[in-house]
Amino acid sequence: MQRFLPLIAATLAIGFASAALAQAPKPEEEIRYRQSALNVMGRSFGALWAMSQGKMPFNPQLAADSAAIVEMMSKLPWNSFGPGTDKGAPTKADTKIWSEMDKFKDKADKMQAEVRKLAQTAKSGDEAAIKAATGDTGKACKSCHDDYRLKEFRQ
Amino acid sequence: MQRFLPLIAATLAIGFASAALAQAPKPEEEIRYRQSALNVMGRSFGALWAMSQGKMPFNPQLAADSAAIVEMMSKLPWNSFGPGTDKGAPTKADTKIWSEMDKFKDKADKMQAEVRKLAQTAKSGDEAAIKAATGDTGKACKSCHDDYRLKEFRQ
Repeated sequence: MQRFLPLIAATLAIGFASAALAQAPKPEEEIRYRQSALNVMGRSFGALWAMSQGKMPFNPQLAADSAAIVEMMSKLPWNSFGPGTDKGAPTKADTKIWSEMDKFKDKADKMQAEVRKLAQTAKSGDEAAIKAATGDTGKACKSCHDDYRLKEFRQ
Repeated sequence: MQRFLPLIAATLAIGFASAALAQAPKPEEEIRYRQSALNVMGRSFGALWAMSQGKMPFNPQLAADSAAIVEMMSKLPWNSFGPGTDKGAPTKADTKIWSEMDKFKDKADKMQAEVRKLAQTAKSGDEAAIKAATGDTGKACKSCHDDYRLKEFRQ
């Protein structure tokens, strides 16, 4: 059952203090994990975005389900940008992240705040409000991507 | 905002019928998506597993948070094993999946049933029950991995 390791990685993923634990995830595992969470988040946000742009029929259940996924995923990547995780696998994370960590975390916090509003709004089924909250969230995503996500993978 | 595409992919991810929609995700996007969901699931399950094995102190909040992530992720990968997604990017998915789809889906369903029990149990904070449900879920994961997950990536 070694396949379920790395064990300790899981603790970081949800913000549990791991100082007392011996085994930290490897940089390539952290890179893969944050990419995974952001990929899952991006697909569900894609549905919300398509609905907000009229490219897909508005579906309140789909909106609520998608926003719940986005909300859960929005919490996960940030602890995987720790020291030493700036390289180790192909990544689009700009190295500026590690020299501007406070600014980066601030943008991540702002995105999460918008996502919380979006997820709350999505439960209401109010189409106009959901579309507006999707736009606000998209802006928060874009603000961080513009500053900290490279267009191409680097090593 | 094209970065939030593929839009349609999101609909598949949560089981929304997409027949009326023009753009399907590419095989490599499906492969990456299912890997992402399973990776996020695996990390949170790793925490539950470590606690169940006494390799990490039992923490009821961590258990409940982890199980909630595992439950949400457990629903997402299966629609991304559609026709034509057996190749297109490095994958550990055995090609048997596509010739034994009913058996594969059956195992996926069984895993999801165990995960639902685990997530429900995890809310109780009952250490022994959570550890037992973690074991049952681990067996369901392993049963599918043994049959359908290769040890190495293939193209």
